[in-house]
Amino acid sequence: MGESNPFESLPQNAANHAALSPTSFLAWSGEVYPDRTALIHGELRQTWGETYSRCRQMASALVKRGISAGDTVAVMAPNIPAAYEMHFAPAMIGAVLNALNVRLDAATLAFMLEFGEAKMVFVDRAFAPVMAEAIEQMDNPPTVVDIDDPVYDGDESLIGEIEYEAFLAEGDADFEWRLPEDEWNAISLNFTSGTTGNPKGVVYHHRGAYLNAMTNAMAWDMPTHAVYLWTLPMFHCNGWCFPWTLAAKAGTNVCLRQVAADPIIDAMSEHGVTHYCGAPIVHSMLINAEADKLAGIKQTVYGLVAGAAPPAAMIEGMERIGFKLTHVYGLTETYGPAALCAKHEAWDNVSLDERVRLNGRQGVRYPTQRLLTVVDQETGEPVPHDGKTMGELVFAGNIVMKGYLKNPSATEEAFADGWYHTGDLGYVEPDGYIKIADRAKDVIISGGENISSLEIESVLSRHPAIAASAVVARPDEKWGETPCAFVELRPGEETTEDEIIAYCRERLAKFKCPKTVVFGALPTTSTGKVQKYELRSSAEHLDD
Amino acid sequence: MGESNPFESLPQNAANHAALSPTSFLAWSGEVYPDRTALIHGELRQTWGETYSRCRQMASALVKRGISAGDTVAVMAPNIPAAYEMHFAPAMIGAVLNALNVRLDAATLAFMLEFGEAKMVFVDRAFAPVMAEAIEQMDNPPTVVDIDDPVYDGDESLIGEIEYEAFLAEGDADFEWRLPEDEWNAISLNFTSGTTGNPKGVVYHHRGAYLNAMTNAMAWDMPTHAVYLWTLPMFHCNGWCFPWTLAAKAGTNVCLRQVAADPIIDAMSEHGVTHYCGAPIVHSMLINAEADKLAGIKQTVYGLVAGAAPPAAMIEGMERIGFKLTHVYGLTETYGPAALCAKHEAWDNVSLDERVRLNGRQGVRYPTQRLLTVVDQETGEPVPHDGKTMGELVFAGNIVMKGYLKNPSATEEAFADGWYHTGDLGYVEPDGYIKIADRAKDVIISGGENISSLEIESVLSRHPAIAASAVVARPDEKWGETPCAFVELRPGEETTEDEIIAYCRERLAKFKCPKTVVFGALPTTSTGKVQKYELRSSAEHLDD
Repeated sequence: MGESNPFESLPQNAANHAALSPTSFLAWSGEVYPDRTALIHGELRQTWGETYSRCRQMASALVKRGISAGDTVAVMAPNIPAAYEMHFAPAMIGAVLNALNVRLDAATLAFMLEFGEAKMVFVDRAFAPVMAEAIEQMDNPPTVVDIDDPVYDGDESLIGEIEYEAFLAEGDADFEWRLPEDEWNAISLNFTSGTTGNPKGVVYHHRGAYLNAMTNAMAWDMPTHAVYLWTLPMFHCNGWCFPWTLAAKAGTNVCLRQVAADPIIDAMSEHGVTHYCGAPIVHSMLINAEADKLAGIKQTVYGLVAGAAPPAAMIEGMERIGFKLTHVYGLTETYGPAALCAKHEAWDNVSLDERVRLNGRQGVRYPTQRLLTVVDQETGEPVPHDGKTMGELVFAGNIVMKGYLKNPSATEEAFADGWYHTGDLGYVEPDGYIKIADRAKDVIISGGENISSLEIESVLSRHPAIAASAVVARPDEKWGETPCAFVELRPGEETTEDEIIAYCRERLAKFKCPKTVVFGALPTTSTGKVQKYELRSSAEHLDD
Repeated sequence: MGESNPFESLPQNAANHAALSPTSFLAWSGEVYPDRTALIHGELRQTWGETYSRCRQMASALVKRGISAGDTVAVMAPNIPAAYEMHFAPAMIGAVLNALNVRLDAATLAFMLEFGEAKMVFVDRAFAPVMAEAIEQMDNPPTVVDIDDPVYDGDESLIGEIEYEAFLAEGDADFEWRLPEDEWNAISLNFTSGTTGNPKGVVYHHRGAYLNAMTNAMAWDMPTHAVYLWTLPMFHCNGWCFPWTLAAKAGTNVCLRQVAADPIIDAMSEHGVTHYCGAPIVHSMLINAEADKLAGIKQTVYGLVAGAAPPAAMIEGMERIGFKLTHVYGLTETYGPAALCAKHEAWDNVSLDERVRLNGRQGVRYPTQRLLTVVDQETGEPVPHDGKTMGELVFAGNIVMKGYLKNPSATEEAFADGWYHTGDLGYVEPDGYIKIADRAKDVIISGGENISSLEIESVLSRHPAIAASAVVARPDEKWGETPCAFVELRPGEETTEDEIIAYCRERLAKFKCPKTVVFGALPTTSTGKVQKYELRSSAEHLDD
């Protein structure tokens, strides 16, 4: 079908084509629902009209300070209105947002700012000390703008040239922003959290951000004017694209500086929160809260959980408190969730155990993702849907990153064979739902047998004295590797290495049982993932 | 920002880019919800798994009969499963669907098939006679495939080479269909209904169909597994893209051969219908139905209405029967609705008259449409939001057609100045909501003054004896034109021309009042629009 086909001789023009960009959602809510509340933060109630106006003004202020298309603008802040606004203003002039993980150390932050070539960084007062230290280490430091959040009561010194509101005031609220010239242009830079290696700079584009923002609402049936609580950090995969989703649905963003049970419950009660996302730890906080504290939450609350399959206690606990939990799956490279465990009505009528099993699967691709499948690592062929043949999970489609910044070899490796390699290993069940068995790096190879660390962790999670566990490979002269379990006990509980090993022997093949058990708190990343590489290092250096 | 920018040196590849096409939604529902009901028609219950399989098979059958990318496949059928499947199968091989209006005459059908270069036409038995007549008139007739719908009980002769199911059986259900090479490729051809001139062939592309299908669900908060009743013809702007929306939401399509009160109400009760769309006449049927008939509808039903602002009686009637009605606006050139009267909570607390006024506006652009505004016809500048300055409504963005088939001058005219000219005239209210005052052709210019025919019709609609009315220009030696009202009375009511003119005089400026009143049934198009061009012709030939 060439140009000669009359259907194809109708070109794109200004009337019938526009770049897909999530900035357009802000314009929509700003124009259609100018008086509705967009942001709640402490005493602040900021409307969509004000938010759209402030983002235009910030875009203008950035231009006046020399920021232009393709420049990186970093932000170091918790989930506050300034962080929200930074998801729009740089994008409105084609600049690229780099939202930094606030738990990182100065050296890592300096690396990220240098590598991302940030021209400007916006710093919340709470993180001024670590950022000052990072800047100190840099050859080409960015301009620093302070964010002096009125809700924050710390007394750190400000370190920037100017404060956010004064910087904003330099701009013009009537600034004529534009959609990007090309929807494939970068919108943000997100460094991987580094559980399996050095951080890489994942680049998102406007098209992907737009589609994933819409799909979050579509897949979750998130209604217009949803009230969304910011428990998931905006610096984590751009808050799974939810800053843009909320603009598309003219919802209300309830900001939160700190993730802890009481402020979460208070915010849910006070503001009628209907939706929130988070790692398992966030949901655990809620189900472990006292019943009378939760009594103030009258509305139905919908939660998304990712990072690990929700265990039975969580599914049961959520049902008990009346929350609706959905399991989603994705990686930094897929804009956050790009798969969900789409529910079936029949699941309501099965046993709790079976419901936990069904809902604990990573599930199926988002409706806008072209492909999620499991492929044999040797042949690249999709594995049969038999619930047991292992392979690597691969994605393809519009909800996959543009690539890694300035890292062609990693980009090429990630995209080998025409799909994005997740590094996660799993299988496909007969209903087409995918279940992760392990991270590639988390497989323990003992005496030539592959052992899934997740399988052992799943057994340990049912032990009454164990609050959390992580299993890694420990080098072994005889077997190559053996499973080593790191175990965190519930408060007041006691047990022994022998007792735990015996517990596993009753439930697992002998070769799969831990040979070593280490007691203590588990090291986690800022997003709640257990840092297995640290545990691997510990396991390597254990005395016999 | 050139290639030198490291963010922009990350190209598209098979892993991170895919053409947007609504065919992907069928694959999703087919794979994720294979056992859920996709189609209900008479005794038929067809699942999403079956529907996806049948569409692949049909795509394969089309290829085997020589259909390839860029070829036109026409269908002449009411809202039956075959018509639904034809919204996917041709698209899966890059062919273009031309869904024909079943109320058209043979000559017009022959014109459309010739002009669209249809290679094949699928014909429901009920329309075999008119299609046989059309084919008879053609130089290059398409291959004819009969659709022998078991629900239809007429005895027309079949006219094709083969019947739909036998044709389907020639295909391979495991056919490996593909997304289009380019999302800008054509997916369908829809002829304008011709209320204002000769039919033009409006071309839709995959990208626009995909985005509008998603936006229908997004803007209407249509949930997963919605049950949708097919009152709106699929041949009308591809059913406003709802065939694709239903696939995206894994909903249930309840088919309907004929739009009449009893079958609609029965289907709503029996199948738990939650959503439907239609011209005002469809909704009127429901509010005029007897209360005990409606009593079987226990669920909340959501309706979209377009074609004319819903009058007070309709808004009130819908509230009385507990239906939720939303007013949408668009044209064939904008894939059906590309604007909606987005509701505000405050509207629930105003008087019925005010609520009717607010909900009767065409409103605001769809969240995915870049622009809907009103521009001065002389200067091209947007008019002030003052609720009175008239101009032409213009759209721009991805929910605008590719262009008119083989009609460069009409395409150029439609897209002049970088937006799509709707031909509708209106103004913008202070809240940014747009109200149509008239079609460009419906303005009556009398003594140099512009008179809105809609304004007069609005007054007439409140007259207790009048069921429906339409006002057009009547040529006049002295004034140029004068308003001529065509009036359909309610059953059993009587009135006179003088009484009606007097009624208008009390409510309108004198120059705006009809000078002539004609009594009788109004001619309408198959989609329920009054055929004003016929009335204009009648008005021209009226005796004094």
